Amino acid sequence: MSGCWEGIAEASRRNNSRICVGLDVDPSRLPEPVKSETDPIFSFNCAVIDATLDLVCCYKPNIAFYEALGLAGLEALYRTIQYIGHRVPVILDAKRGDIGNTALQYARAAFDRLGADAVTVNPYLGLDSIAPFMNFAGKGIFVLCLTSNESAKDFQLYPDEAPLCERVAARVAEWDRGHGCLGLVVGATHAGKIGRLRRVAGGLPFLLPGIGAQGGSLDEVKEAEVPGGGLGVIVNASRSIIFAGEGKNFADKVRAAAEDLRKRVGVQDSTN
Amino acid sequence: MSGCWEGIAEASRRNNSRICVGLDVDPSRLPEPVKSETDPIFSFNCAVIDATLDLVCCYKPNIAFYEALGLAGLEALYRTIQYIGHRVPVILDAKRGDIGNTALQYARAAFDRLGADAVTVNPYLGLDSIAPFMNFAGKGIFVLCLTSNESAKDFQLYPDEAPLCERVAARVAEWDRGHGCLGLVVGATHAGKIGRLRRVAGGLPFLLPGIGAQGGSLDEVKEAEVPGGGLGVIVNASRSIIFAGEGKNFADKVRAAAEDLRKRVGVQDSTN
Repeated sequence: MSGCWEGIAEASRRNNSRICVGLDVDPSRLPEPVKSETDPIFSFNCAVIDATLDLVCCYKPNIAFYEALGLAGLEALYRTIQYIGHRVPVILDAKRGDIGNTALQYARAAFDRLGADAVTVNPYLGLDSIAPFMNFAGKGIFVLCLTSNESAKDFQLYPDEAPLCERVAARVAEWDRGHGCLGLVVGATHAGKIGRLRRVAGGLPFLLPGIGAQGGSLDEVKEAEVPGGGLGVIVNASRSIIFAGEGKNFADKVRAAAEDLRKRVGVQDSTN
Repeated sequence: MSGCWEGIAEASRRNNSRICVGLDVDPSRLPEPVKSETDPIFSFNCAVIDATLDLVCCYKPNIAFYEALGLAGLEALYRTIQYIGHRVPVILDAKRGDIGNTALQYARAAFDRLGADAVTVNPYLGLDSIAPFMNFAGKGIFVLCLTSNESAKDFQLYPDEAPLCERVAARVAEWDRGHGCLGLVVGATHAGKIGRLRRVAGGLPFLLPGIGAQGGSLDEVKEAEVPGGGLGVIVNASRSIIFAGEGKNFADKVRAAAEDLRKRVGVQDSTN
């Protein structure tokens, strides 16, 4: 286990959890009690964090939801990450990808400015778009591999006989040698394909979105595990957890939903 | 010419220009005179805009450079786009890509919040990651196809016999039918490959970065043109123009560099 992943692994052991809660706040779905707060987004996130801090191995805010709210939204994101305060790690879901000189700016934004512990990136531009992130000591980088959406097939599964997602998995595994800071995003909606990606990727950590609102199941989690055990899989759920409750006791419902997913996902049986 | 591109085409005719200036501000390279301003980034951008407004067909700020400066940086970006005030169109270079629900948030950020006229997006997640941008009337979307960096070859040129970038060009041309709002980003550093992408992509507008600091040449611009004329190519240069001068008269140097590139690129001979 490289230092880049130790924070998540430690939280995973402490909380007996492989789940990540996605802090993807849609203002139109906020529960009534937080709507009257000065900063409803931040208040909502605090309530979700307070309700789940001992149930998760990390949080994953998707920056798009904050950008859509303008500068006030981004300020709420800054405050949210400060509020978590490294009690568990934060993966900034940003899916950035640009040429090296520019990728460095994105890395600075994620790690130096926002204080994230890990980030998601897009592989389309190749190694020199990812390398600037790898130069930040102790930070984890999840590279998009096979995403959870329907249109993943447009390019990621092409060509049939040697799909792009497998090439990404193979190259990322290769680039990770001597670094130990790379992982893959593999949507939990691709039964049958995940096991193959696991064989290509060796022991890289997989971040699995798609459980919950998008319909992925626990069979896909099994398929993603690293034979022999260890932190191989982090299961993310966003909407199905954070919007589990609406009224006065919404935070209890959030906790119950997180607790339920934590139990269902479990931890890996290290003898499998 | 679809309504989505009419703003750029109109500025191109008015200013007799196919050049786009990239507002990619690196604080360490700011000229002395703006360093003492209250908001040096904004002041610098205003000086560059004042010096080039009648020489360009659009501006292209890359949001990474502003994100790297935290909320103050993003505020400078907001103010810069307001300062341009639709006198010429703004392409927000953001290279976003996420699943539909999230892509919609990025589109809101770019178009509703920042007020950009066009945006760059990453194709890795396929059509449903691009469609939310296409639903904003009158906005242009440049999809990354073949980027200007060395590592473009890792995935975009794979497999040899039917490279990903050509598949992206073909699918984007197909998705654009009935819309007229899509274009492609094609780096000007790939002599010999651009002409092939032009044949696959039909008449889609090409945004060509890589001229200037990255070493692309005017031969590649020729290769990217649409036979028969029209707005086929927009040539972007960033560092080689905005950092052309250092001292008191830096804005004159910026203007001279933009004027030089505008002349060299010219407009397309519609009889070729």
